[in-house]
Amino acid sequence: MSVANGRALLATPGPTNIPDRVLQAMMRPAEELHTPTIIDLTTTLLADLQKLFRTSGQTYLYACNGHGAWEAALTNVLSRGDKVLVLASGRFAVGWGEMASFIGVDVEVLAGSWSAAVDPAAVESRLRQDRDHKIKAVLMVQVDTASGVANDVLAVRRAIDAAQHSALYMIDGVASLACMPFEMDAWGVDVAMSASQKGLMTSPGLGFVAANDKAHKAHETANLRTRYWDWTSRRSPLHYMKHCGTPPEHLMFGLRASLDMIFEEGLEAVWKRHSLLAGATHAAVSRWAEGQCLALNVDEPAQRASSVTPVLTKGFEPGKVSEFTRTMCGVTLGGGLGDLSGKAFRIAHMGHVNAPMVLGSLAAVEMALQALDIPHGSGGTAAAIAHLSAAVSPAGG
Amino acid sequence: MSVANGRALLATPGPTNIPDRVLQAMMRPAEELHTPTIIDLTTTLLADLQKLFRTSGQTYLYACNGHGAWEAALTNVLSRGDKVLVLASGRFAVGWGEMASFIGVDVEVLAGSWSAAVDPAAVESRLRQDRDHKIKAVLMVQVDTASGVANDVLAVRRAIDAAQHSALYMIDGVASLACMPFEMDAWGVDVAMSASQKGLMTSPGLGFVAANDKAHKAHETANLRTRYWDWTSRRSPLHYMKHCGTPPEHLMFGLRASLDMIFEEGLEAVWKRHSLLAGATHAAVSRWAEGQCLALNVDEPAQRASSVTPVLTKGFEPGKVSEFTRTMCGVTLGGGLGDLSGKAFRIAHMGHVNAPMVLGSLAAVEMALQALDIPHGSGGTAAAIAHLSAAVSPAGG
Repeated sequence: MSVANGRALLATPGPTNIPDRVLQAMMRPAEELHTPTIIDLTTTLLADLQKLFRTSGQTYLYACNGHGAWEAALTNVLSRGDKVLVLASGRFAVGWGEMASFIGVDVEVLAGSWSAAVDPAAVESRLRQDRDHKIKAVLMVQVDTASGVANDVLAVRRAIDAAQHSALYMIDGVASLACMPFEMDAWGVDVAMSASQKGLMTSPGLGFVAANDKAHKAHETANLRTRYWDWTSRRSPLHYMKHCGTPPEHLMFGLRASLDMIFEEGLEAVWKRHSLLAGATHAAVSRWAEGQCLALNVDEPAQRASSVTPVLTKGFEPGKVSEFTRTMCGVTLGGGLGDLSGKAFRIAHMGHVNAPMVLGSLAAVEMALQALDIPHGSGGTAAAIAHLSAAVSPAGG
Repeated sequence: MSVANGRALLATPGPTNIPDRVLQAMMRPAEELHTPTIIDLTTTLLADLQKLFRTSGQTYLYACNGHGAWEAALTNVLSRGDKVLVLASGRFAVGWGEMASFIGVDVEVLAGSWSAAVDPAAVESRLRQDRDHKIKAVLMVQVDTASGVANDVLAVRRAIDAAQHSALYMIDGVASLACMPFEMDAWGVDVAMSASQKGLMTSPGLGFVAANDKAHKAHETANLRTRYWDWTSRRSPLHYMKHCGTPPEHLMFGLRASLDMIFEEGLEAVWKRHSLLAGATHAAVSRWAEGQCLALNVDEPAQRASSVTPVLTKGFEPGKVSEFTRTMCGVTLGGGLGDLSGKAFRIAHMGHVNAPMVLGSLAAVEMALQALDIPHGSGGTAAAIAHLSAAVSPAGG
């Protein structure tokens, strides 16, 4: 017997639950690619992506996934043999660096932790040693989807400035955009990228890049540019060139609905909602951790992502919990990746998520812990409820 | 007053009319990207793309549009400074060549006509001059979407063989796949590419490449490879690597439905249906041409595409016809591109099209010609009806 039937719940860090409104926006006939509808859709999406990245720089929309957007960001500003510094805090900045290395970029990884944010002092120190400014770009994720670490983007900017270094500052916002505060211009980010299937609640297949004037200056001499990703081509006044061919119109209609939802709620409110739901998750896991068999991966609360929470497991196989929640409760959790493979499961709380969805996911995990006789502190879900209740009560903050 | 309301009809050469079944297949929740459903979907799509390209070679599925698939095809087999020969027959092989040129390939265009197929003898002659085999690849479209020219892929293969030339033979099948016979292996094509939004009746945002052993041999030394497009990465046993990240799952579910429809009808039957509907269109335009103000762009019937028919206009602005059919009849025609810009409109008959759709489009054009007082031979639509009637009557072929 299971209690899984009902609406399936994705607690995975992408693809995330797609709102009915987004799916319904995609449920429409194809349009000729030059109609006023498609031209206007392109214009408003690019403008609204500026609002999302908080930049007055240029935004670019690609038919591709997040890895494609990584490649778009790299090839537009780098040349073969350029050196870049990757700031490790899990799997994904390192993966971005591997992509750079593949196309002939000289990649140095500044070692980091899988359970703590990038240390700005270490960045400053490394950059100070680079007296000739051989390092052309610094690559970091805001949130590492694998480790659940949230980096302090502004603090690292200040470290770069303290070292008086000229490198481009490039941020992966795939697991953070529309989940946590991001201020591209105010934080001095030169290139930022993201994708459709996490905080943006849209079907996978759209990638985004935002770039400021400094990035466009580097673009002028970059020799890794290719036509599909090329910014100059995509800044053409010709609509067809903006997409380098046929626009991915259904995904764009989906994204339009998603952005409408985000701006109707208010971007700051979206960030706050994520912060509260993440806090509830951390409260639950902290309680369960009292049984010594589970633990939060990131100790420092300020370094925990608002979008995903990896839960370390001790003495049992994390897949047993995921298997239980999926088959018995209809809740799909994320597995452990990279250094956390086989050592953690991940609870995602990003995108189209509210109190019953996150509390329901946590309750399903608690059911699994009970049913599988995994020692855990009691009252995790109750702690999550209390966390949210206090935050949203009329008397509360 | 107009008679436009009712189901809007796209007679544009991509995006094409999307079947309800394809749209409905996309109307589903997101799935965790490693579920058996998504892994199986990937496997069956890659296998069915082999059936579509008629190859035992490898197939690759990308989150990208047709231009992205162009780039994928080029970067996987070429190196900087390599020379390629582009066989012109309109706009699109030339565009593919421009993309190659952008990334450092030495591109030579073998001049061709906008109203006739590539001449195999000219190809043979040019390749014979290339005694050192400096030309590493020959690029051609099967159908040029702009000119409506259909090239003879097998005849050009024979020309390459007659010249005893070792170049890779690369075919753009964007406007022909699932519209006209294509036999990758039997015709000696080394690399073929296509996209989702024409004959495959699916939302734009998926690109496909097929490659044989010879192409994979060239791949081993190609230095234009990048990680997102890279075949070796995508042949990894790891599911995540096959997509270089998150699979574009909704578009893939749509493609699954489209391929099911194609194979249920039978690929040969799909080709035959396109051929009949194209023949009906040619019959109508031939009749209208008797008024001396309209003409088929391609004289030789065997060189006309089964997917799209450009109609040359003399003494009037083609946009007037398109504007009339769109606003008065709900039928969107294609405009003229490149050399035919302002000199033609295009009637597409590809993908999810049947007798009433194509006859309806032709009837709408005939309405426009009458309403706008454009001299034209009478009975165009009647000739199209007769063409189809004869072909499908029990007594007929």
